[in-house]
Amino acid sequence: MKILGIEHLGIAVKDLENDAPFWNHILNIEHQSTEVVEDQSVTTDIYDTGNGKIELLESTKPGSAIAKFIEKRGAGIHHVCFEVEDIYLAIKELKENNIHVLSDEPSTGAEGYKVVFIHPKSTGGVLVELAEKQN
Amino acid sequence: MKILGIEHLGIAVKDLENDAPFWNHILNIEHQSTEVVEDQSVTTDIYDTGNGKIELLESTKPGSAIAKFIEKRGAGIHHVCFEVEDIYLAIKELKENNIHVLSDEPSTGAEGYKVVFIHPKSTGGVLVELAEKQN
Repeated sequence: MKILGIEHLGIAVKDLENDAPFWNHILNIEHQSTEVVEDQSVTTDIYDTGNGKIELLESTKPGSAIAKFIEKRGAGIHHVCFEVEDIYLAIKELKENNIHVLSDEPSTGAEGYKVVFIHPKSTGGVLVELAEKQN
Repeated sequence: MKILGIEHLGIAVKDLENDAPFWNHILNIEHQSTEVVEDQSVTTDIYDTGNGKIELLESTKPGSAIAKFIEKRGAGIHHVCFEVEDIYLAIKELKENNIHVLSDEPSTGAEGYKVVFIHPKSTGGVLVELAEKQN
């Protein structure tokens, strides 16, 4: 597969209103968009450095993946997302290599990207997302 | 301060020999360099996507920051590093804003960058490194 770069870093936050100002006003990273991704029960609040984004993730309901993550490990870095040239080719290659992908087909993530996640057990403890930009 | 992008993502690994192949051979991210950073008691094994690096961190001795991190939380994402235009200006601004930086002066990190770390208590749970490239 061909990886084009780090697309974003996903960060689980307890409370956007309280946590966003550090990224926006202290680190001075430009706000790009805020979007509810219903499938994942999160509000994604995206900041763009120009070379890699920061995606703050706030749970929209108890029991969501982000709510469970925060309960278990506390707020902090949740996943890294790489942009790939071809998500279908990436999934095919991962499966051929016995890498545990969380779904056989890509789903639609924030900003309309086609995305798939790789289980941390296959990566040495890191939740890895792959994403292909849609035109 | 001016952030130029995500410089790298630091990932704590138990065993480079076992964990590096996923990043290098499965994700197909090009190996750039391997370096022991004595100050931090780690071997850093760096892979470059072309837009953001992956820095695998293996402890060189028991009791190091990386060894303690793995003991407490397991292997996985350890920190995110942003490239900044001016590390001294960044430290000055962070201190003016009562952000807890781990040292008043930058130290020398991998690849000769001047670096400073921000305490996770000031960021919502994320260990943030800032780095200025040296010419």
